[in-house]
Amino acid sequence: MRKRVLKFFNQIKPELDAILIKNSNSHIDMNFFYFTGLVQGLFENAQIIVYPDGTIDLIVSELEAETAKKTTAHVHVYKNYQEYEKILTNLSSNLKKIGINYNAVPYQSFLNLKKIFPNTLFTDISKDLIKTRLTKDSKEIENIKKACEITDRVVYKIPELLREGISEYELAAEMNFLMQKNGADKPAFDTISSFAQHTAEPHYTHGDTQLNINDFVLCDFGACFKKYNADVTRTFMFGKANEKQIEMYETVKKAQKIGLDMIEPGVSACDVHKNVALYIDSTQFKGRFIHSTGHSLGIEVHDGPGFTSENTMFLEENMVLTVEPGIYILGYGGVRIEDDIIVTKNGFEFLSHASKEIFEV
Amino acid sequence: MRKRVLKFFNQIKPELDAILIKNSNSHIDMNFFYFTGLVQGLFENAQIIVYPDGTIDLIVSELEAETAKKTTAHVHVYKNYQEYEKILTNLSSNLKKIGINYNAVPYQSFLNLKKIFPNTLFTDISKDLIKTRLTKDSKEIENIKKACEITDRVVYKIPELLREGISEYELAAEMNFLMQKNGADKPAFDTISSFAQHTAEPHYTHGDTQLNINDFVLCDFGACFKKYNADVTRTFMFGKANEKQIEMYETVKKAQKIGLDMIEPGVSACDVHKNVALYIDSTQFKGRFIHSTGHSLGIEVHDGPGFTSENTMFLEENMVLTVEPGIYILGYGGVRIEDDIIVTKNGFEFLSHASKEIFEV
Repeated sequence: MRKRVLKFFNQIKPELDAILIKNSNSHIDMNFFYFTGLVQGLFENAQIIVYPDGTIDLIVSELEAETAKKTTAHVHVYKNYQEYEKILTNLSSNLKKIGINYNAVPYQSFLNLKKIFPNTLFTDISKDLIKTRLTKDSKEIENIKKACEITDRVVYKIPELLREGISEYELAAEMNFLMQKNGADKPAFDTISSFAQHTAEPHYTHGDTQLNINDFVLCDFGACFKKYNADVTRTFMFGKANEKQIEMYETVKKAQKIGLDMIEPGVSACDVHKNVALYIDSTQFKGRFIHSTGHSLGIEVHDGPGFTSENTMFLEENMVLTVEPGIYILGYGGVRIEDDIIVTKNGFEFLSHASKEIFEV
Repeated sequence: MRKRVLKFFNQIKPELDAILIKNSNSHIDMNFFYFTGLVQGLFENAQIIVYPDGTIDLIVSELEAETAKKTTAHVHVYKNYQEYEKILTNLSSNLKKIGINYNAVPYQSFLNLKKIFPNTLFTDISKDLIKTRLTKDSKEIENIKKACEITDRVVYKIPELLREGISEYELAAEMNFLMQKNGADKPAFDTISSFAQHTAEPHYTHGDTQLNINDFVLCDFGACFKKYNADVTRTFMFGKANEKQIEMYETVKKAQKIGLDMIEPGVSACDVHKNVALYIDSTQFKGRFIHSTGHSLGIEVHDGPGFTSENTMFLEENMVLTVEPGIYILGYGGVRIEDDIIVTKNGFEFLSHASKEIFEV
């Protein structure tokens, strides 16, 4: 993915000899997949050295040598730690200044690198990586669109899946199955399917609670397609919604519209959040919106900053973000509506398309 | 989980005032769940301070405050970074020496901690954490057993799912669905369902390749139940196995038995691997076994070292490990058989029970 490498180096000061992206046993840095373009494989303990001319050295264990060879990178295969260290030393001995993702590399891995390269200057590139990935290229947009399309299809099926007595985890299982049957590699994150008062906890995933008449059903989920993610939320009413439920729903829906209506290049991301929050705080649900209005979306689900009160970034064409206001009343329930959008030249386009009309199952 | 905290502090030198386990945005340190006993929630950016007397301070954003309160920890809720920093400073100002998991904490988080606590001595506890978790307590064993039981049920269903033309990702979708319908929280890791020559790549997951008569089908997967994992592999023949396929299969099966027969407390883990590898290298498949014989299994899938050539650890009662030899012939195919076992007083017990007779579908 030469273009992505050049995009990265073009926007930083031209003083790095290379950057080094290192996966550990337990933590995969998605920049590894961003730069290589690989869409398969685990690549634990693999790493890439990426150079300003667009070339990449890929160091990989023999377990994944075949998959690695599907890239245009120069692939170097090791069998054990000694071989790995030798390859790394040979490749990097002339590099004086190397960029490292301080946000991803474990402290121990950093210490190991310092030991291998006692005379190399390491510098943090975490912010530059995020900035590079904020605007998406055509291949990325294609994959996110496909992930959203799969997710949409599942949203439309949810009402058919709801029945009295179904448990949250059974519903999650059905949703995950439908995503994968429709071509998702896997769920983008732990599928949230929460019922009743659990919907008031934004990060509750699912348990064995069973569905009862008049419950809220909150589904927050997305497909992962070729490493790219969708992230969509819909809240359904199981049975006829009462006045309070309708009021909550319509307030969230209007809040989302207020945010969406502002989106175009040049707008400050924090202003979008502030307006959404201001609106909810002007209603009877003051103080019930307890998270940000959205985040960047891409090869990571949280792919960089989004609509938060602190984010002074200005929107640019081809940024992909979620817009997801919510209202949460502990012990009662919550409503969240979340869509994925791409910033266009003159505004935005929806990437997720499922209906947002209040849905009484 | 006071017992787990005491187990940790009992086996280290008594000089730490506390340990600090920190989750970041993109990396969750499973020790957070180990010490709190929480079985639900994401807990991004949450952290715990764990004291030698068994108590825990849990610092969490308001998004997951409700879930956090299900523990016996002292819960401190923050709304933004300033509040988080203030809580952390108040709690830790008297701590002179704090243990940190250098293998998990990103370098940037470490630098932030150094800034908040300029006079505190940090020390690496990564090896102590792994050592503590190597032997499992009764609650952990119960959860791993349940994860294995769910996985077993799916293994028995796989032959029914195989049909000419089914794609790898469809099979993976069916397997994941069955796991979740049987009570798994989610798959323990990206389910591997590979066909034909893909079975020769140990870390290949799944693509759109379709199943043909006489293909190997390799399924490497496991359920995750209350944060604890199973990890089982079976290789099937779709159609009648030829002589070479039978030879590969029986060699792997015998290699596994050689490993298993050695397992009891006091045996050196590397000796198990060496004997398994020695056997395979004594057959026509010399050089075709390219990974370790197994790993520790628990709250992480790779829960610590296992049967590798470098691991000098001696087996102890209540260690849980995988035993998974394999033979891989690039361009042709691979066979792996993997079971999960627990070391007992006098030997071992299987936690996974699915048949290992050669299975021609």
